[in-house]
Amino acid sequence: MKQRIDDFAAFGGAPAFATPLHVAQINLPPWTEVEAAFRGIFDRRYFANHGPLVRELEARLAALLGAKHAVCVTNGTVALTIMVATLPGKTEVIVPAYTFPATVQAISWAGLTPVLCDVDPATHMVTEATLAPCLTERTAAVLAVHLWGQPCQPERLEAFCAKHRLKLFFDACHGIGSSSGGRRIGSFGDAESFSFHATKVVGGGEGGCVTTRDDETAAKLRTIRNFHPSETFCAVPMRMNGKMSEAQAAMTLLSLDHFQENVAANRRRYAWFQRGLAGIPGVSLLEYSSDNTNNYQYIVLEIDAAAAGVDRDAFLEVLGAENVLCRRHFSPGIHKMPPYRDSVKNPADFSATDRLCARVLQVPNSQTMGQPEVEALCGLIRSIQLQAPAIRDARRKPRS
Amino acid sequence: MKQRIDDFAAFGGAPAFATPLHVAQINLPPWTEVEAAFRGIFDRRYFANHGPLVRELEARLAALLGAKHAVCVTNGTVALTIMVATLPGKTEVIVPAYTFPATVQAISWAGLTPVLCDVDPATHMVTEATLAPCLTERTAAVLAVHLWGQPCQPERLEAFCAKHRLKLFFDACHGIGSSSGGRRIGSFGDAESFSFHATKVVGGGEGGCVTTRDDETAAKLRTIRNFHPSETFCAVPMRMNGKMSEAQAAMTLLSLDHFQENVAANRRRYAWFQRGLAGIPGVSLLEYSSDNTNNYQYIVLEIDAAAAGVDRDAFLEVLGAENVLCRRHFSPGIHKMPPYRDSVKNPADFSATDRLCARVLQVPNSQTMGQPEVEALCGLIRSIQLQAPAIRDARRKPRS
Repeated sequence: MKQRIDDFAAFGGAPAFATPLHVAQINLPPWTEVEAAFRGIFDRRYFANHGPLVRELEARLAALLGAKHAVCVTNGTVALTIMVATLPGKTEVIVPAYTFPATVQAISWAGLTPVLCDVDPATHMVTEATLAPCLTERTAAVLAVHLWGQPCQPERLEAFCAKHRLKLFFDACHGIGSSSGGRRIGSFGDAESFSFHATKVVGGGEGGCVTTRDDETAAKLRTIRNFHPSETFCAVPMRMNGKMSEAQAAMTLLSLDHFQENVAANRRRYAWFQRGLAGIPGVSLLEYSSDNTNNYQYIVLEIDAAAAGVDRDAFLEVLGAENVLCRRHFSPGIHKMPPYRDSVKNPADFSATDRLCARVLQVPNSQTMGQPEVEALCGLIRSIQLQAPAIRDARRKPRS
Repeated sequence: MKQRIDDFAAFGGAPAFATPLHVAQINLPPWTEVEAAFRGIFDRRYFANHGPLVRELEARLAALLGAKHAVCVTNGTVALTIMVATLPGKTEVIVPAYTFPATVQAISWAGLTPVLCDVDPATHMVTEATLAPCLTERTAAVLAVHLWGQPCQPERLEAFCAKHRLKLFFDACHGIGSSSGGRRIGSFGDAESFSFHATKVVGGGEGGCVTTRDDETAAKLRTIRNFHPSETFCAVPMRMNGKMSEAQAAMTLLSLDHFQENVAANRRRYAWFQRGLAGIPGVSLLEYSSDNTNNYQYIVLEIDAAAAGVDRDAFLEVLGAENVLCRRHFSPGIHKMPPYRDSVKNPADFSATDRLCARVLQVPNSQTMGQPEVEALCGLIRSIQLQAPAIRDARRKPRS
């Protein structure tokens, strides 16, 4: 605990952590496993183009995620892009403004029009009520986001999209291993997209996949993924190079081997955060519904500036100086980000997004953090709130 | 040499090669170097997002290619896509129909209109004469291709584009290490795109980069490459995830270390092919101009069916049965490929492309082939031509 204002690194003290804590770092398997995997690739001389490890990974992902097909690609953004590129051209896709920019950029690259909607302030995700005002005659699909690994009411959205004759896609880049009503994320809607970026609970450095239960959608995805007519399964408007390499597949397979233990470690850390942050005024930790399983990869706080005494950005800056590198995900909302802000008609429609963008703070969580680090981090957050008036005053003064 | 028709594997004989020869296989560095590089990544726990190896690779590529900037990305198609995405929207880009599909697909993904042109029958590449008929008021750029590693008359195209006030881009995915008039490919036009796919002379499994001498273009490329506003250098219409991983950078750096020796080995193999194929009627090997340096990565034949006695597809099939996996690059021409064929007004404009698509055969060339393999392959080609009448007859009959 830092007791006085000048104990904080932002105001002259020593940083609490000697090396930076990031919001997520890759969950590394043991080096011996990595070495053996890469030695295998080397011996086979097979590096790219849907090799044996990519095919093995696709089979394991399909089984894990309860989908008939898993189509592996370069990264999560490519997964999102080829997923929406299965839609007919010049149509609209409804998508939340509170999300990572790639969700919306994927729609633009596919030549479609993203139509931004607001989210529910409690879950941070879309609902029938936030989607409905955006429906037009040109709406072809909904692209919902399973944010922070939480299921985005997939059963209700399936009913909504069936009623309005829309395709339903999910950005499940956060959601591997989570489930809703006993069904795994990956088995919902027309298709779902995953990311294996280094910051994800299953990570291959970079990587992604699209899951679907539908044979025709899978054929389209496999055709779009490969630029060359030698791998053509059906007619699609455009094709690209979305291929996953053997190196990416090797790392992702090893990460899958350790998936259950990494989720269990996340679950333990989450409990330490729950305990460490309990009762701090104005600081609330995102709760995961006990009705669903979750991967617990994300430690997400909401800061109520009135109750805490300082705002979210004060926490961000003071923690940053302590080598705790938090993130203001997903600020600014996409409705305030170029080029999308230019087509927003009524900024007032995004009140929940704006509120979250001002309040949410994602804090570090990774394999490298044990109980002492989590407790020290929670202690820092508690100290900041306790010293709120002094910090507020100090931040108003010009820095020396 | 196979002396009789039934010596050929296609007609009942044993295959000449026990394992398949591919048109290109990755030039692997020694395993000890690979192991050390991956151990370093593992120890740094830094896998993605413009890491230290990506930055080192960018500096080395810029120096090697004579460009001020090298911007590394996931793959060659992404390099092409972010390069043309620096253009203003809704404009036209003139591009050859005789190229790998990705050249043209990149233009479509960027929301621009590709306008296909024919090529010169001798060099297989665009010239002022093939570009000129495609100029319209909406033309914004030319995307020329340095095919087979040959420079595509870059000085002449620079003059042509300056005269018509067009941007000039090059698909240099084949062209690393080649030069024209003493200037390296990578230093021409507004920007040039490279590939480090496993089949390239510098290979990282997958990978690519864009080079440019222009600071503003580099700022645009770096902004488009990264989806997130935290890495914004200027305003661009669209952004994506085009990031190269540390694993890709590690392999590409090792490949660069061995670049000169790999080009020298290519040069030796090319001389063996020259000698081995000399004087075979109807079979000509693409000659590289001695005015330029070249990477000699591609062994490209043209088959004149009338002179050889059998056509290109007969060579492809008979060699394939011998475990020599040749390619009909780049057949069909893009003007006959969906979706582009639908917008072609006059198919007769593509006579040179059609002729090449019917005649060109790319044959295997890789690190794993020594002089005995090259001589055996050339001997097979010679045998096929010598047995042309019997092969022609046998292919007409239904197979037993």
